[in-house]
Amino acid sequence: MSMLAARIAREFGSPALVIDLDVVAANIARLQAACERVGLANRPHIKTHKSPVLARMQVEAGARGITCQKLGEAEVMAEAGLDDILISYNILGADKVGRLGALLRDTRVTVAADNPTVVAGLPEAGRIAGRPLGVVVECDTGRARAGVTTPEEAVTLARDIAGRDGLAFEGLLLYAPEDAVSQTQAFLDATLAGLAAHGLAARIVSTGGTPNLRNLGRIRGATEHRSGTSIFNDRMMMACGAAALEDCALHVVATVVSRAAPARGILDSGSKTLTSDTGGGLDGFGLLREYPRARIARFAEEHGFLDLSASPDTPAVGEVVRIVPNHVCVTVNMHDRYVAVRGEEIVGEIPVAARGRLA
Amino acid sequence: MSMLAARIAREFGSPALVIDLDVVAANIARLQAACERVGLANRPHIKTHKSPVLARMQVEAGARGITCQKLGEAEVMAEAGLDDILISYNILGADKVGRLGALLRDTRVTVAADNPTVVAGLPEAGRIAGRPLGVVVECDTGRARAGVTTPEEAVTLARDIAGRDGLAFEGLLLYAPEDAVSQTQAFLDATLAGLAAHGLAARIVSTGGTPNLRNLGRIRGATEHRSGTSIFNDRMMMACGAAALEDCALHVVATVVSRAAPARGILDSGSKTLTSDTGGGLDGFGLLREYPRARIARFAEEHGFLDLSASPDTPAVGEVVRIVPNHVCVTVNMHDRYVAVRGEEIVGEIPVAARGRLA
Repeated sequence: MSMLAARIAREFGSPALVIDLDVVAANIARLQAACERVGLANRPHIKTHKSPVLARMQVEAGARGITCQKLGEAEVMAEAGLDDILISYNILGADKVGRLGALLRDTRVTVAADNPTVVAGLPEAGRIAGRPLGVVVECDTGRARAGVTTPEEAVTLARDIAGRDGLAFEGLLLYAPEDAVSQTQAFLDATLAGLAAHGLAARIVSTGGTPNLRNLGRIRGATEHRSGTSIFNDRMMMACGAAALEDCALHVVATVVSRAAPARGILDSGSKTLTSDTGGGLDGFGLLREYPRARIARFAEEHGFLDLSASPDTPAVGEVVRIVPNHVCVTVNMHDRYVAVRGEEIVGEIPVAARGRLA
Repeated sequence: MSMLAARIAREFGSPALVIDLDVVAANIARLQAACERVGLANRPHIKTHKSPVLARMQVEAGARGITCQKLGEAEVMAEAGLDDILISYNILGADKVGRLGALLRDTRVTVAADNPTVVAGLPEAGRIAGRPLGVVVECDTGRARAGVTTPEEAVTLARDIAGRDGLAFEGLLLYAPEDAVSQTQAFLDATLAGLAAHGLAARIVSTGGTPNLRNLGRIRGATEHRSGTSIFNDRMMMACGAAALEDCALHVVATVVSRAAPARGILDSGSKTLTSDTGGGLDGFGLLREYPRARIARFAEEHGFLDLSASPDTPAVGEVVRIVPNHVCVTVNMHDRYVAVRGEEIVGEIPVAARGRLA
């Protein structure tokens, strides 16, 4: 049993969300170096950590700015002094556009849009702020989620943006499938050509995703990259080869509370602590560092049910363990604070300040 | 489009967690009446709503007390003046036992235990409080989760509890499978007989679960029932026949933010708003009240991906919809507040005060 984990359980309560700042710093530096190596700006996605403290570490390491997914996250970051924020999301509705305008007064903000309804609502933000709101066109090059699906639509939407008072067309936002480099390049080339034909240029071409770090530098014309998960890593990143166990900066300290049968155990961490996210179909709901062959087989809200049938050793009731989650971004969002450590030393607590900022 | 939902999105932001207090009150009254009809005390589980305001509604309707799953939830409830709290969980560790003792000073608290390690740690709570801590033995009558698995173990653990200064043996905690009434009865009868043989009696025999309401009154010797989900209901309760759509008191107000293709749409509510809980294997991640044949097919953290291929009508970008979640208990835990309505009237906000109290 890790003495540090047991001490954290005692002093901060179990379960607890723990990050090792040495590993965090190494992960931040690695991402920054990877971006610099290929001449891309680094714009890390704070949805993963939701902490201005950690965002500032990223900016101090060289990040150009940050990415947020929701307006509420951007407000928390701006309030803490972060600047140059890309909100990679369609902002809709007079209330949100009003908040966006207020944010834009003192903070450089760019937003994404993938349809004319969203674009039509945005100019009011620029009017409120007294300066134009930057907008990038979200493009779907194969993932079938948000984004216009053809270069023609991208150009049409860019012209719509460029033609409106209060808005400035800034470029393109991509979140390409990892195996679609050539198809993404074709989409991007056609879009840039179409923009040029109308006298428009993309100052920003933003690519995204931690698994896509393996494609970094392979999309000609890209200017920046958004990576979220790489600051902590998780089981999903290990499964896709983007990280090794020693790159995982975060774990959940949990306690075994029941051992009702030889092959069964229960952790005090269920779906309200770790989430039911399967990490894209992984086996089990997390990795126990001390018992790697124990399987978190299923959850109740406050129970993690361990299948210990394949584990040569098994934990006793009261034993404290460390769990690497399947998907760190959603796990962080269940907690109000991190316990920050460096190696075997407890440094203090860091609030998950933008947790629950859904709107 | 619901005018009220659109107004909530405007005034409180989208996504928003909404409860109809008229439906809540009807659900509370129905549970209370069901318990009274068969002579059982009602001890609703607050893990579902995590709100002292709603717990008080339950007590005012006649509930004997409340059930909490975590010590942190019980602390929030006691702080708000709720009394007679059952914590249906193994409490472990000197820090938690200390908190439990402090709680017990001014609040009637009973805890569950399913193993001797837990029991051995608990007497300190009674010593701190200056009065004995009530303990019930958690019994597993077929669900293979927490709980001793034989009547003999139950009796042994009860004797262990009864023999310790600072503890009082109070009875038994069951969470039986819905289809295991006779097997549960056999376990209970054998345990009660074994207790009697040692001069012990179970003042409390607590049964649990909203789906188990259909078995209410069928377990001879039961004294009380714990039901959580029935205060709100959800898709899971509809699927098992425990509720109809009109009994669902809670929905998430969400906005369609993208319609990149005719059969696709995106909601501003993803796994960080609704959770990836499948509700025990339901198809899709929620029911759109306005578009019941739309399917929330998958999630990103802030995106709910709609498959609209089977839906005769489809929502436009900007349209506000109401989603009944798969599993209401975990969805509530993602939000900091409810927007409370009565029919078409907005009443105000209610904090999800015990949200995130994991420890």
